[in-house]
Amino acid sequence: MRIALCQINTTVGDLAGNVARVLRDARRAADAGADLAVFPELCVTGYPPQDLLDRPAFLDDVDAAVEHLAQHAPDGLALLVGAPVRNDTPVGKRLFNTALLLAEGAVQAGVSKTLLPTYDVFDEYRYFEPCPEREVIEWGGLRLGVHLCEDMWNNEEQAPYHLYAANPIDELAALGVDLFVNLSASPYATGKPTERRRLIRESCREHGVPFVYVNQVGANTELIFDGDSQVQSAAGEGLWHAPLFEEAFHVWDSEAPGDPVEVAPEDVTAEIHDALVLGVRDYVEKTGPGVFDKALVGLSGGIDSAVTCALAVEALGADRVVGVTMPSAYSSSGSVDDSRALAENLGIEFHQVSIRPAVDAFRAMLEPLFAGTDEGVAEENVQARARGVTLMAISNKFGHLLLTTGNKSEMAVGYATLYGDMSGGLAVLSDVFKTEVYRVAEHVNARAGRDLIPRTTITKPPSAELKPGQVDQDSLPPYDVLDAILERFVEQHESPAAIASETGYDLALVDRIARMVDRNEYKRRQAAPGLRVSSKAFGPGRRVPIVMQRTRINTAGQGERVEGAPAATAVDA
Amino acid sequence: MRIALCQINTTVGDLAGNVARVLRDARRAADAGADLAVFPELCVTGYPPQDLLDRPAFLDDVDAAVEHLAQHAPDGLALLVGAPVRNDTPVGKRLFNTALLLAEGAVQAGVSKTLLPTYDVFDEYRYFEPCPEREVIEWGGLRLGVHLCEDMWNNEEQAPYHLYAANPIDELAALGVDLFVNLSASPYATGKPTERRRLIRESCREHGVPFVYVNQVGANTELIFDGDSQVQSAAGEGLWHAPLFEEAFHVWDSEAPGDPVEVAPEDVTAEIHDALVLGVRDYVEKTGPGVFDKALVGLSGGIDSAVTCALAVEALGADRVVGVTMPSAYSSSGSVDDSRALAENLGIEFHQVSIRPAVDAFRAMLEPLFAGTDEGVAEENVQARARGVTLMAISNKFGHLLLTTGNKSEMAVGYATLYGDMSGGLAVLSDVFKTEVYRVAEHVNARAGRDLIPRTTITKPPSAELKPGQVDQDSLPPYDVLDAILERFVEQHESPAAIASETGYDLALVDRIARMVDRNEYKRRQAAPGLRVSSKAFGPGRRVPIVMQRTRINTAGQGERVEGAPAATAVDA
Repeated sequence: MRIALCQINTTVGDLAGNVARVLRDARRAADAGADLAVFPELCVTGYPPQDLLDRPAFLDDVDAAVEHLAQHAPDGLALLVGAPVRNDTPVGKRLFNTALLLAEGAVQAGVSKTLLPTYDVFDEYRYFEPCPEREVIEWGGLRLGVHLCEDMWNNEEQAPYHLYAANPIDELAALGVDLFVNLSASPYATGKPTERRRLIRESCREHGVPFVYVNQVGANTELIFDGDSQVQSAAGEGLWHAPLFEEAFHVWDSEAPGDPVEVAPEDVTAEIHDALVLGVRDYVEKTGPGVFDKALVGLSGGIDSAVTCALAVEALGADRVVGVTMPSAYSSSGSVDDSRALAENLGIEFHQVSIRPAVDAFRAMLEPLFAGTDEGVAEENVQARARGVTLMAISNKFGHLLLTTGNKSEMAVGYATLYGDMSGGLAVLSDVFKTEVYRVAEHVNARAGRDLIPRTTITKPPSAELKPGQVDQDSLPPYDVLDAILERFVEQHESPAAIASETGYDLALVDRIARMVDRNEYKRRQAAPGLRVSSKAFGPGRRVPIVMQRTRINTAGQGERVEGAPAATAVDA
Repeated sequence: MRIALCQINTTVGDLAGNVARVLRDARRAADAGADLAVFPELCVTGYPPQDLLDRPAFLDDVDAAVEHLAQHAPDGLALLVGAPVRNDTPVGKRLFNTALLLAEGAVQAGVSKTLLPTYDVFDEYRYFEPCPEREVIEWGGLRLGVHLCEDMWNNEEQAPYHLYAANPIDELAALGVDLFVNLSASPYATGKPTERRRLIRESCREHGVPFVYVNQVGANTELIFDGDSQVQSAAGEGLWHAPLFEEAFHVWDSEAPGDPVEVAPEDVTAEIHDALVLGVRDYVEKTGPGVFDKALVGLSGGIDSAVTCALAVEALGADRVVGVTMPSAYSSSGSVDDSRALAENLGIEFHQVSIRPAVDAFRAMLEPLFAGTDEGVAEENVQARARGVTLMAISNKFGHLLLTTGNKSEMAVGYATLYGDMSGGLAVLSDVFKTEVYRVAEHVNARAGRDLIPRTTITKPPSAELKPGQVDQDSLPPYDVLDAILERFVEQHESPAAIASETGYDLALVDRIARMVDRNEYKRRQAAPGLRVSSKAFGPGRRVPIVMQRTRINTAGQGERVEGAPAATAVDA
């Protein structure tokens, strides 16, 4: 059987557009003599459709879209597409997450998802009922082990722990299959491509069955899908691997499977770069034509705004990016010069607006209330917010999408000003630690073959420049230390005590960092959505209470504050 | 058996504090001769603990807290408390949501939750494995049908549809029980107390079994728990009802159940009022002593800021609330006068800061970029943002919690300025429609016996006062029409076509309103957490994509924009 793998970029809710993309690749598949075209999970709705699934009219529209696909598929070609399908029984969640086989003008078969991820960014049990039993689809003389995304992820034979009781891969194999076919909407995170390939390889080898894997590509708000569609042989050899972060199409013949191909090892920095470029582009493009003509970036002369701006240029083109430098009384001359040099290197529109008039005005307005107080965070934040107001005014005036520039390290410890530098519609680097931002900068320059991002921007000590002589390391440890602590605390859920014991860092330091993370949850809850490139990003995949206390009963039976607890509460027990 | 119902106000993560609250009521129960003291669901951690449950060290601390409770419970008294308990099998989610019977220094029995709400604000399947079977706890000579919260909500015998396959109430009854005991963490929404009482009554009558219901009270970030703990007889008569929105304690003797009591019908406006006051108070108090000394409200002279300010005074006291009026060139004289009158009526600290210097400064700063453009939303928003910067500076300087004042109608259609009037830590009215805000205002005045909120504030036409002569109804339909449309679109998930057909409102109007709602999701994602008083509030319980298109295939097989779709996308199919 000739099978077309269709790695398409769908838009959430865009049923007509998604149907058009499916039919485009279906025609291409038919032209190539394919018998079956395989598309990603929920490709009719785009993934994740979220609470659109709560709208009955949306589900009616999905039914019409599926009907249209069945009737307009090219003659002789079967389509395997993903769509939500109603649970018509009187018990359970009202939908299934289903792979539908469309052929000869009608739905020929359907297989629903068994394992519903409900962790991190995934909320599938919010909408879907799990499929109670496994079934093989017979088509074109083959027994197809069709399943969806997470269904293949419970297959680690050696693991001591299984999240789910069912193991669809093993159960399908036990029913006898000639080919595994997985429809996915599996978002990118660093290390995911390697892990995915390993998992598929093990399934192939364990059961002696080849594997066709088709994943969605493209970004929908904060989630970025890498694609990584592939065919592996019954021996677990890669026969085809789609390029990452772009649409792809390939026809594979199960009768003439071909030779193994080489796959380059993962280059994490290059992947992050490509993911973020796609994330920015799709945010702008999918919001709709004419909504955002250009992206807008406030340039500080520092590394984060420089990298954000360079990525925006790659995503949209130099003619669709605007940079603005906004010096204050505390700005170094480098902050303007480096910003201008960056803008010239990138070839973008560039403006300079001094914030001194606004800062002076606020100072005068607040003088009666602030008389007798010391200058501090309030005054520093006025500067950051005067920049935010300036950028938002330009954004509102010209319809530009303002990009925020804060990195994951800063967002973690709250080293950012709400309604100031946090103003904007999309946070490009908020899931990239500072140490990785430097690597992305070098990657940008290496790709260009010259220092697009000025060398002085890369080498200067990071500073918010909100008071004289300020640098980040006045109040934070060196970024390699900070990032190591944050990776363990935020991504691995380790306690401050465990981190200190395992890394040798001072417990008081780790405690202070953890406390900063939890205390600043209120800021992150009001942050712009941030592009996700790790397995644990801030945002909808990390749900931490804003209002909380962190205390415990110690071994002496006394109440005490937990290391990293945000407030020094009164403790008793 | 003498049973103490302990309606306590727990704080998320405050294990030592929560243990202290449990032991306080346990001692009271022992003093009253009780045999068993019943506490709310997850009372050891507070509800909802969210991703604190992902932290292994937190779970170790929970174990220590439970152990402490078992060892420190008064002699002769059994405690029934809620806590997360590890799933020690190698399959499934790693926790159960469990009711533990503690007595004689140890855990005597445990029953875990079967029905795990995973919809709206609830994410229980993210953390918990459902209990596979029902079990009766025998204690003190009684067979207790212990279960948790949602377990009692699948018991509608007449409903055509059941969310869950299991029905714990019926299954427990079939095992033979003398008493149902429900441990809950059930948040308030309008109508919920009536619904809860009806459901319990039906369970009692169907099985001829009395019912002890103990719910948590208090607010944790956006969720407000009303308590509403109660005892109903085997005949479904209310024998005791706790006061709403405050801690309560009652000892009930199953041998001498007592006489039925009268329950006043729900007064929705009074409940909303009480809920919001509790929500503000607990946000401030539970964030910890010394974090927020006072609440800060920007006063516009309008109804929303007046009601927000009055509620803050009820929550914290007049000496802990600060009002600031910030007139601009477009402010009516009433906006200052009415603000001052409100502040005087409430007896709060009051300041006036003109924003004209800042607005003039931004105008001059932006003049080179904006030359030749027409004044519009960009300039209007600068005013709102100048107010935001002013309020945040005061908040940062003095440690005040800035309250935002936008109501649900405005937040729905995006009639609010990001980083302007949306600046703040807690949104008091964001789940209260404008028409209801007026009723809350009248309720506030009626309680006071005088017009705390000036009559002119109530009677003037609503206006943002961002340009000359502007009123809300320039761009919005009358609020009773708007709220009726929003209630159907946001809370009932009805389509614009269905709303127009059922209400008789013009489809073009409904379409425009729905489009405003979906298009402004990006603003709401950056809004302050808002106190939830309805069954569908904006915030974590409503998960709508920011980046999406809304198109469909119509009956003619053509692609078209869906009514209410946010952008006029290119459509093809």
